[in-house]
Amino acid sequence: MLAPGQHPAHRLQPLLNPASIAIVGASGDAARIGGMPIAHLTRFGYAGRVYPINPKYGEVFGLRCWPDLESLPEAPDLVVLAVAAAQVLPMLQRCAARGVRAVLVYAAGFAEEGARGAQLQAELEAYVATTDLVVAGPNAMGFANLNTQAHTNFASVFNTVPMQQGAGRVSLLTQSGNVCAAVYAIARRLGVDFSHFINTGNEACVDFAQYLEYLAQDDATDVALGYIEELRDGPRFMAAAAEFARRGKLLILYKAGETDKGSEAVRSHTSALAGDRAVYQAAFAQLGIVQGHDFVQLAQLAHLADYRHKSAGKRVAIITISGALGAILADKFIGAGLEVPTLPQPLQDVLRAGIPDYGMVTNPVDVTGNVVNDPGFVRTAMQALAQSDAVDTVVLYAPGYMLDRMADDLVAVSAAHGKLFVAIDTGAATTRAQLRAGGVPVFEDIGVAVAALAPFLLWHERRRTGRWLQLRAQPLPAPAALPAQLDEYRTKQLLAAHGMPAVAERVATSADEAVAAAEALGYPVVLKVLSPDIAHKTEAGGVRLRLHDADAVRAVYGEVLASCRRHAPQARIEGALVGRMESGVAELIVGATRDAVFGMTLTVGLGGVLTELYQDVSHRVLPVDEAMALEMLRELKAYPLLTGFRGRPAGDVAAACAAIAGFSRAVLALGAQVQEAEVNPLLVKAEGQGVCALDALVLPAPPSAS
Amino acid sequence: MLAPGQHPAHRLQPLLNPASIAIVGASGDAARIGGMPIAHLTRFGYAGRVYPINPKYGEVFGLRCWPDLESLPEAPDLVVLAVAAAQVLPMLQRCAARGVRAVLVYAAGFAEEGARGAQLQAELEAYVATTDLVVAGPNAMGFANLNTQAHTNFASVFNTVPMQQGAGRVSLLTQSGNVCAAVYAIARRLGVDFSHFINTGNEACVDFAQYLEYLAQDDATDVALGYIEELRDGPRFMAAAAEFARRGKLLILYKAGETDKGSEAVRSHTSALAGDRAVYQAAFAQLGIVQGHDFVQLAQLAHLADYRHKSAGKRVAIITISGALGAILADKFIGAGLEVPTLPQPLQDVLRAGIPDYGMVTNPVDVTGNVVNDPGFVRTAMQALAQSDAVDTVVLYAPGYMLDRMADDLVAVSAAHGKLFVAIDTGAATTRAQLRAGGVPVFEDIGVAVAALAPFLLWHERRRTGRWLQLRAQPLPAPAALPAQLDEYRTKQLLAAHGMPAVAERVATSADEAVAAAEALGYPVVLKVLSPDIAHKTEAGGVRLRLHDADAVRAVYGEVLASCRRHAPQARIEGALVGRMESGVAELIVGATRDAVFGMTLTVGLGGVLTELYQDVSHRVLPVDEAMALEMLRELKAYPLLTGFRGRPAGDVAAACAAIAGFSRAVLALGAQVQEAEVNPLLVKAEGQGVCALDALVLPAPPSAS
Repeated sequence: MLAPGQHPAHRLQPLLNPASIAIVGASGDAARIGGMPIAHLTRFGYAGRVYPINPKYGEVFGLRCWPDLESLPEAPDLVVLAVAAAQVLPMLQRCAARGVRAVLVYAAGFAEEGARGAQLQAELEAYVATTDLVVAGPNAMGFANLNTQAHTNFASVFNTVPMQQGAGRVSLLTQSGNVCAAVYAIARRLGVDFSHFINTGNEACVDFAQYLEYLAQDDATDVALGYIEELRDGPRFMAAAAEFARRGKLLILYKAGETDKGSEAVRSHTSALAGDRAVYQAAFAQLGIVQGHDFVQLAQLAHLADYRHKSAGKRVAIITISGALGAILADKFIGAGLEVPTLPQPLQDVLRAGIPDYGMVTNPVDVTGNVVNDPGFVRTAMQALAQSDAVDTVVLYAPGYMLDRMADDLVAVSAAHGKLFVAIDTGAATTRAQLRAGGVPVFEDIGVAVAALAPFLLWHERRRTGRWLQLRAQPLPAPAALPAQLDEYRTKQLLAAHGMPAVAERVATSADEAVAAAEALGYPVVLKVLSPDIAHKTEAGGVRLRLHDADAVRAVYGEVLASCRRHAPQARIEGALVGRMESGVAELIVGATRDAVFGMTLTVGLGGVLTELYQDVSHRVLPVDEAMALEMLRELKAYPLLTGFRGRPAGDVAAACAAIAGFSRAVLALGAQVQEAEVNPLLVKAEGQGVCALDALVLPAPPSAS
Repeated sequence: MLAPGQHPAHRLQPLLNPASIAIVGASGDAARIGGMPIAHLTRFGYAGRVYPINPKYGEVFGLRCWPDLESLPEAPDLVVLAVAAAQVLPMLQRCAARGVRAVLVYAAGFAEEGARGAQLQAELEAYVATTDLVVAGPNAMGFANLNTQAHTNFASVFNTVPMQQGAGRVSLLTQSGNVCAAVYAIARRLGVDFSHFINTGNEACVDFAQYLEYLAQDDATDVALGYIEELRDGPRFMAAAAEFARRGKLLILYKAGETDKGSEAVRSHTSALAGDRAVYQAAFAQLGIVQGHDFVQLAQLAHLADYRHKSAGKRVAIITISGALGAILADKFIGAGLEVPTLPQPLQDVLRAGIPDYGMVTNPVDVTGNVVNDPGFVRTAMQALAQSDAVDTVVLYAPGYMLDRMADDLVAVSAAHGKLFVAIDTGAATTRAQLRAGGVPVFEDIGVAVAALAPFLLWHERRRTGRWLQLRAQPLPAPAALPAQLDEYRTKQLLAAHGMPAVAERVATSADEAVAAAEALGYPVVLKVLSPDIAHKTEAGGVRLRLHDADAVRAVYGEVLASCRRHAPQARIEGALVGRMESGVAELIVGATRDAVFGMTLTVGLGGVLTELYQDVSHRVLPVDEAMALEMLRELKAYPLLTGFRGRPAGDVAAACAAIAGFSRAVLALGAQVQEAEVNPLLVKAEGQGVCALDALVLPAPPSAS
């Protein structure tokens, strides 16, 4: 049975929208995992065909119970295996033979349970790979399609939480059955209606990204709420997220492991790498994913998603009937990354016309308690706010009866303009339903409002201004070959060819050449050993700074090479690099590493030990262009050091951004050949004087990865 | 009328617990400010005497209405003035003449509204100072004593929110009427019963601290929820907070202005200095105040306060039926500053006996869904947790029906042991009331649970281990006189006398003396001009480092003095300081400044521009002893630099703590004579080698302040 507009083509369709369901290990006891799905299917009115299978029973829940799969009158779309781990593989073989399309495996005792379980799971995966079967789980709580009531789960939450009345457009996709049930219970209590209830179990054959891909294409899904512990297929995940963005759907994901210890707890629970949470955060933002961090907030974001087609952004006008409440809201919004800009004078003038002297018109706006007595003014003021270019979103906080008096005007102005108006009522307004239906979301608590609004408005902001998904869709730079012998000089030249400038320097293979190079470059100079085999040049005595004349260069050339030969007798020593001794305003570290999930990611930070202690770095998945590079630098708490902090000279930020973008191009051009690349330091000179890489390193990918 | 145990002696008693109330400007219209309090008093059953006063009416709300104050049969405890600003002062004079004890002024148009209003308020204050009247407001929404139903407010929230049935023990005290009403509405919805509803208005004659003092002594108040924008009387506030702690009451305060922009918004709203939020945060912790940041959280903390006599602390054991939920909870708790320690092996063994292999016993503990079928084990496990010294608090997250099955055991174990057990149920447990009554708080949401539990458990922690209130109660160090001429040498000697060691140095008034000093100290030395008038020695050419022999010292002595005479011809130059050239592991800044509210506060941070950018400093109100100094250093993100970060040598942290405590003693001994004091830098040498102040400054208080 297909819901309207469903895509029959997607291979997960029989799993998530089956027309017929068989339950192997069926039971007449609704408390047992073989009974509960049948109880749900009959109780909630699934219209498809249901085949309980158990030779022990003739009938369960009023349905005929079949002795075995083979005796069914048809090959069911989906078979639910409510059997023990050891019986799973034989049953899968029978399913394949019977022509079943999809199988859901409840049983625990696979990869989550030691070496023996992992072996069992590997056998399962190997077998399924030889078939056309779509196999979900094992170790899963099962699914529910709440629009068709196709329940294939043993989730008791459906026994205790009232079932929705209408169709839902929000899908739930989690890597934990218990989290799926907990979020469902909370969100239902807050009035969210669901489309799909999906938990992925061990993801032996179908992983999170494949479900996400299904939901991106699913016409019954406008919003997905997800919970992730680890991602297996990064590219597929990214493609699915991009598809959500392309279709104007909202993807809201809660990634476990927000603290170091929390990540540890996740690791010990999943025995998988949880990934770098800072990289996840950056990648989510780039992919247009709203990052949630709380079950209630997920539910509220699902509500807000209904208003995603309104025009909105991070510049918020706050309208209250109290200076104190305005200040509190401004504080919370700003703390959450939004802006509360001072309103332009003409707008202030419009407001002042109706607001007494003891009220405020700057923003937050305190209209005072009197203003509700002048309904004409309320509409005038809201229209002015709706038409102003200075604010993107209008938040109105008025308790109960005051909101009620303004409700008609709010709905009218909201309908006439595209701009998002939001109401907060900590009292008991009777017009909440009217407002919500009229395009104005209503929150009942300040904290909840801020927790949901801030990521939602920042998502709007990124959707409007962000270009990464387009950037990513553009063709890659022409591939560049990685030289076989990658010394410091060649590395810097390679990066320079893509726009990451290197310090002025020359290779010298003799003391005479070193002196000639120094004379050409101008003193003072730096002399460094040039060897593809010496990674830690300073420790080897291979670096000498501030050489002021030819004698010094000549002497040092010999000393440096001798020291390095002593220190590393096996190293190939090609000579020395003679470079101009440069000084600047600040030093950056620009690095690229291969993230297991998101691929090549770029990290920018200021050099030095304190940057490391304060973890003051910014991440992005490649590609990164000039504008994104500037965004990254601005995210650094130490950014003021680049712009003239306390009378210091400002650095050449534009040149730094261009260099970072060049580095991004270089890394992309090198592609799979590279495991890691770093410029450290990138010297940022004074404004207008550019930047230059003083040292650089490219680590080739290990043979297996290329 | 006195509530049982009320202290008749406190001067605010007629204001907050009046036996008779007159309302001047009475109205029969419940929507008007002269009518609403009378409507509340009659509707909610206030048992005291109520005297509406208005010559226009004979009766309002069924009560006799009197023509004027003078015709009343008695002098009422409290007169509510529902009259315009201009009429307030004349009415106060009549109240005083009539023998009224307290007056509440609603009228706006005072200090909050420009120079004219400020003048009017100054006149009011000046007049009241000549009387025995207790005058609340102006610009206040009024009070409610919810135990006697003495309503003296025009708060419409009492019309829309159901009135509590029983006695309340939570008092609400805010610096905004609208915030008072908003928190009341939210907290009532969450089931909090109140004692007092107080908003302070302009605080012309009675300030926040005085109300707080009343509540500290009030036997009907166990918990106070407060909202503060600014404090006027710091010492009185601190004394009241200390009294809360002494009586085992819980004080929970929300301080406006959590971000810089938020603080600005508060300032523009109150036209008062909002104070340094970091200092507030430190002071609140020292005073045993729980700092709230959300209306819902305030209400939940009021609930938790019922369990404040249980034994609890920050080491949390998390028990769930799901690895994922355990990881999420651990993450949230750790992110909020709590600990989730690995359980000791014997305790793990007890748990393992009943938990299947795929469950976890380390912490978070995943008992798995099966465990509820073994009630004997549940009790055994909880008893073991209750008896363990390794955890302070046990948090159990089990959805609905599973919690219900464990409820009896939970209540029994909680009753038998003093340790706090907390339940989280995002389902629909039917045993919530049983659990709460049995000493086990139940939360319905993870986010709310963490937001309330974290500050509550940290409060427990401080209450158990914190000694600041005792420290503060100890006698001050013997007063020390501030030398009239406070040059660098004398400043360092002064501080050294209290335990802040100075670098080894000598005063030289000639080149010969300088050389002699250097010979005695040992080379290399530092030479600095000694002048009480030159603050920026380096700019004056007054500092020379790394002098390696007598010739250098002799030459530099002359150069330094000459340079300073050129640079500052008027400066008194006493000679030079010759000090040993020291080097160390790190440099600290240790400063004391006079906070407008909390008095002398100490700030510690690492030296350097990045520390400033990252705002990596720790604050405490004095006194600070060695243990607190260590706590402060540990709060610094850069603390690892003191303990041997990445192979660097560790610093002498113990000596640094002793020096900071000595600095605290010195500042306290100098008392009101000092406005500001700073050691910058305090050089921290390698472990075992001590610390020394390289430079120090004491700024005397301006004459008016001493």
